Parts: sequence; C-alpha cells; structure tokens
Amino acid sequence: MDTFTYRYPVAVYFGEKAAEKNLPAELAKVGENVLLAYGGGSIKRNGVYEELMGLLTAAGKTVTEFSGIMSNPTYAKVQEGARLARENHIDFILAVGGGSVIDCCKVVSAQAKTDEDLWELETVKHGGPAGLIPMGAVVTAFGTGAEMNNGAVITNEEKKVKGPLWGAFYDFAILDPAYTMTMPMGQVISGAFDALSHCMETYMGSPRGTNLSDEINEACQRNIIRNLRATLRDPQDIAARSELVWAAAMGENGILKIGKVTDFQAHMLEHQLGAYTDCNHGRGLAVIHPVLYCHMLPEAAPQFARLAVNVWDVDPAGKTENELADAFIKMLAAFIEEIGLPTTFAQMGIPADTDFQAVADSTVLTGGCCKRFTREELLTVLHECQ
Amino acid sequence: MDTFTYRYPVAVYFGEKAAEKNLPAELAKVGENVLLAYGGGSIKRNGVYEELMGLLTAAGKTVTEFSGIMSNPTYAKVQEGARLARENHIDFILAVGGGSVIDCCKVVSAQAKTDEDLWELETVKHGGPAGLIPMGAVVTAFGTGAEMNNGAVITNEEKKVKGPLWGAFYDFAILDPAYTMTMPMGQVISGAFDALSHCMETYMGSPRGTNLSDEINEACQRNIIRNLRATLRDPQDIAARSELVWAAAMGENGILKIGKVTDFQAHMLEHQLGAYTDCNHGRGLAVIHPVLYCHMLPEAAPQFARLAVNVWDVDPAGKTENELADAFIKMLAAFIEEIGLPTTFAQMGIPADTDFQAVADSTVLTGGCCKRFTREELLTVLHECQ
Repeated sequence: MDTFTYRYPVAVYFGEKAAEKNLPAELAKVGENVLLAYGGGSIKRNGVYEELMGLLTAAGKTVTEFSGIMSNPTYAKVQEGARLARENHIDFILAVGGGSVIDCCKVVSAQAKTDEDLWELETVKHGGPAGLIPMGAVVTAFGTGAEMNNGAVITNEEKKVKGPLWGAFYDFAILDPAYTMTMPMGQVISGAFDALSHCMETYMGSPRGTNLSDEINEACQRNIIRNLRATLRDPQDIAARSELVWAAAMGENGILKIGKVTDFQAHMLEHQLGAYTDCNHGRGLAVIHPVLYCHMLPEAAPQFARLAVNVWDVDPAGKTENELADAFIKMLAAFIEEIGLPTTFAQMGIPADTDFQAVADSTVLTGGCCKRFTREELLTVLHECQ
Repeated sequence: MDTFTYRYPVAVYFGEKAAEKNLPAELAKVGENVLLAYGGGSIKRNGVYEELMGLLTAAGKTVTEFSGIMSNPTYAKVQEGARLARENHIDFILAVGGGSVIDCCKVVSAQAKTDEDLWELETVKHGGPAGLIPMGAVVTAFGTGAEMNNGAVITNEEKKVKGPLWGAFYDFAILDPAYTMTMPMGQVISGAFDALSHCMETYMGSPRGTNLSDEINEACQRNIIRNLRATLRDPQDIAARSELVWAAAMGENGILKIGKVTDFQAHMLEHQLGAYTDCNHGRGLAVIHPVLYCHMLPEAAPQFARLAVNVWDVDPAGKTENELADAFIKMLAAFIEEIGLPTTFAQMGIPADTDFQAVADSTVLTGGCCKRFTREELLTVLHECQ
C-alpha cells in the first residue's frame, strides 16, 4: 500500500519513514514540553526510542518520560501520568506504543487539566473533560485502532471495572508498519484478532440487512484473515503487515459503524474478564467469540450465514441459512486454533475459581446486537469458556 | 440503513427528515444573509423548496435566490452567483441539488471573496482561494459525491475546458434519500453509473496489488450494481435508494483513494467531451468506459480479472487472467445496456463532426493508471465510441 495522509478527524501519516517525514512539522506546532509515553521499553531495543528522541531533540523539545504503561492500563497509571504532566508543564503528549499506551494517554491528557476525579466525572456526574493536552500517537503495535478513535479503555482496579472513558481524538497518528515488525508474534496474532473482533461486533449490530457498511466490513474481515495468514507464513512480509496495520485502524475508526448501532458484547464481557484477571485482550476475545456466537443462534443466523459465504468462502449451494450460520462459527473456531490462539480460559491460565458471577454481573449491556444477553446467559457463556 | 452523522471533514446528516432535524442547528451558526442556490426548479415541484424556505424563514434568514444552475455549470454562471453573493452580503450558501449545483457553489463561495479571476488564479498563477463563504449542501440528486469532496468541475465555455477548480469542502451535507425519489429515472441511472465509474477509476490506479482500499472499493461497486438493479425493479424502493445515495458519496469522498494514486482517465476524457458537446456526464462515461478498457488490456488484466470475480461474480474456474479480464469488460458493457445507458456517442446525439481531435488534445493526463494513453490512442477511443 502506498504512503498516505488521512484525516478523520485525526491526521494519519501512514507508511515508510512516516515519523521522519511528518513528525518535525507536527512538533513545530506544539509547545516545548513534551511527555514521551511508552510501555515496557521494547522501543529502546528496536531503535524507535532513539529515532523519536532524535526528532524531539532536533525540534528543541524538553522531554519528560512516562514509561512502564502496562497492558490493561490502570487508572492509577493515568494519575501518575497526569501528575507528571502537571509537574512538568507538559504542552504535548507523544504516545508511542499500542492501544494500552495510546488509550492511557487519552485520559492523562484530560486528567492533567482538571483536579476532578475523571472517573467520577464521567460515570457519576456524566460530564466530559474540561480541557485536553494535545497528543500525537506513534503506533508500534497494531490491533486496537485506538490511534483513530476517541475511546479509552482503562482498568479501574479499585472498582473492578475495565471500561471506556470517552477521551479525545489524537491530533495525529503515525503508522509506519516497519515499527511493528519487532512485535512478538503472539501480540501480532492477538492484535489482529482484536481487529477482526471489532469488525464482527460491528457487523452484528443494527440494522441487520445487507448494507454498504457491512459490505465494507466484510472486506476488512477478509483482509485481516488473509494478511494474518500471510504474516504467519512470513513474519517479515511488510506488505501483509502494512495491510494489517491499516485494516486494524479502519476496523475501529468509525467507518464500519456508519449507519449502525452496535453493543460490542464480546468486548464488554472480555473487558470485565480483564478487570478481574488482567488477561490478554485478544486472547480473551478468541475464547469468548465462538462460545458467545453459539448462543446467538438463531437470532444472528442471517448475519452468520452472510459471513460464511462472503468472508469465509463457504459454498452456499444446497445449504440452509442455519447450516451456513453453523459453518461460520466452525470456520471461525477453526481459524482461532489455526493461528494458535487459545480456545479455553484454562489455556489462558485464568483460574477456575475466578468470580465469573461478578464478571457477568458487571458487564455493560447497551443493546444493539441482534440478541441481548441476560446476566444468566453471560454466566453460562463464561462457564462454557472455561 | 440507519440515520447517521458522519464527519470527514464535512458533517454529513443522513436519513429521514435529515434537513428538519439538523438544518436549524446549522443555520443558527451562520449569518443572516443566505444564498439559496438550485437548478432548474424541480425542488419547487417536489416540496423541497417549500420545506427549506420554511426552515430558513424560521431561522430568521434573509434569502437571496440563485437559480437556474445548469448541468455542466459554466464559469459564467459562477460569476453570476459571485455577483449575487457580493451584492447581497451573503454570509452563507445553501446549495440544493446534485453535483452541478454543489460544485458551482464551491467556486461561487471562493469567487465572491476576491476580485481576481479564479480560473487564472488557479490554472496560471497556481494560487488558491483567498477566502470562502461557508456552505451547506442539500442533496436532491446523487451520483457525483460532490457534497463530500472539495473538487468543483466547472465548464469554461470560452476556454473550452471542463475541469476541476479545487474549491472547498462544505461545512455540512444533508442526504435525505427521500429527497431523491423524484429524480427522473434517467438521472438516477446516469448518477449511479457516475458513482460506479468513480469506483472503477480509483481501482485502476496504483498500487495495483490487492489492498484494503480496493477491497472496500469492490464492496461499493457491488452495492451500486445491486441497488441500481433493485431501483430499476422498484423506483420507490427507499432502502435501495438509501444505499445508492450513500454509496455514491462514499465512492468519491476520498476513502476509496486512501493509499492510491489515480488519474481518472475516463472522467478526464468525458469532461473534455462535455466541454465541446455539453453532453450528459454519466451517459458519456457509459459509452467511454468499455471502449477505453478494451484499450487497457493487457496492462489492466490483473485488476479487470479481480473485478470479474469479486464484483461481477464470474466463476474463475478454468479461466486464464486474460479470459477473466475480457469477461469483466463484457459484463460491464452488458450492464450498461441492461440499465438503458447508451453505448455510442451517436445514441447520445453527439454530432459526428465534433472536433474529437480537440477533445483528445485538451484531455488532462496526469498518470496513475496502469496505462497512460497517448493523444493518438485517446482519439482512437473517441472514434470507436462514435
């Protein structure tokens, strides 16, 4: 795929040397004090840290580092970032990483501008952020699409909630697929599955009849499946990686949701599983999806049948809708095994004595999917996932 | 498809009663003096004029009418609009119609703000507009996607050029499919074919390998073909119309072009044909496309073959790439006949003594497609279209 610039409303700079080509002009627009946010330090091993520090220094910035942002970033980590931002009079946040770093900084950007407790502000007082520190994202791990949307999934350990704090859009995002080439293959796979899940969850929303957004969605799903397989055959295939990086962004930047209402039930359930177990997001989704979908028959049969034919290349000749729907679930489950994702919570190391009742009870159900699960049904799903 | 709001960077309000629901808030943001621009007056027969005037009056606006904007809007008409805008101290332009009205107003919006000749400013001095009057579009005829992009195709009769003057994005666009239900069926067909052509022309650009933008493009093409057929079966099918209206917008709002370079050769050739003959845009494209594509074999064989399978449902079993490519051109030509579009210039009433040499010589060739035509080849194409 060619290098491109895309604004929606985030300016996305995609392709080879995207940071070198575009970061200087973006940095020239912002103040001197920059918070450089990242995760466990892989960017120090693959050269990205050095390159970005070079660009920041050349731009005359004073850099404060905010490191150690974990998977399933916590509200406590947000507060640490906000304190750093306040103490260092931060003018701009450069988030370097995947969805965890990028989401964490969305909330840091808001929290740094107010003394109010953001969680309470949003969930109790139903207010929004008072102000925001401008932000740019450099994507080194793909999957979540966090760089192009304004959701921020944060784990409040105290409240046992992993949920979206609606933050802000980044001013820009830099997606250089080369930056993702050192991702561990397990993270590539779980990131790609997360992206596929975003597509599927959107597809299961309303309206349910064939429509352009769903047809575009099917294109994204096929793209992710094909390019993940290509990446597993050759982890150095930069063309396949480029497609995956962009498909993941498109999967959760709002375009697939045009004209649709969705509730992301698998995600909502997995988020709460994450709040209670700190499990890997993509792997949790992989276990939940086929089980949840078995419980969505027959409500979702028309959509499942379409996916069987249009995404999974099942020959519809002589098959009923229910047979096709069943074939879709089997193809999806087989794909999950094929790419090496777990099929049970046990394989993920989730303890059998996890409080699944609490997970089910705390899952947010907003409606939008063709089937609305009850708490009891969610609990059944969780038990079947064990 | 559900009602939705979409910003890119135009705020698009789509669906039933989109004007009633959204125009008051948008009008509240702009000044008192509004230029209401429209075409031949069909909006006075279908109730749209009355409804919009009601909303404008309720918002306390002083309305100046700018009517009679023709298909293939002329630069002279732009100057008329600009004079009206200046004389009446226009604060806001509401363009009501299809691509012609919408494009004309993009240039009026810029021309009203400067005494310079905009054509010379852009094509000779390579400058941009000094300022713009804010604009909103109400789409009553779909096809061009003009409401979501910043191109403005204007015919300079004196210079014999129909070309893009790069204008501005609208602040918002209202797409209520119900407003398009009184379009003459001929306009529905040529509008849908224009939209299909935008998709195909983008698809023929670089890079040529399978990529997400092309896969999304295929989804748009399938959608347009299917929903045009549904509309021809039942012109009152509002679901099919809704899909067409949105697919036409998506076809030329930039999303299909992400990561691609295109040159729109069929469009460029048709534009100059239009400059010399004032012919209908969609009908001209219908004649040109299959002939042009025959001349693009074998360069475009890989793309044509993919379209045969992925859009036109040709079974690839046992067929070579060239056979599939050939099948695509045949399917496209058959579709053009099926939907009642012309297959020769003669059927369009284009005189045999048209100066086709001048048409070919004045066509802008920028490169990007898999084959770059010479002037001689373009002339051959035009003669074969006769």
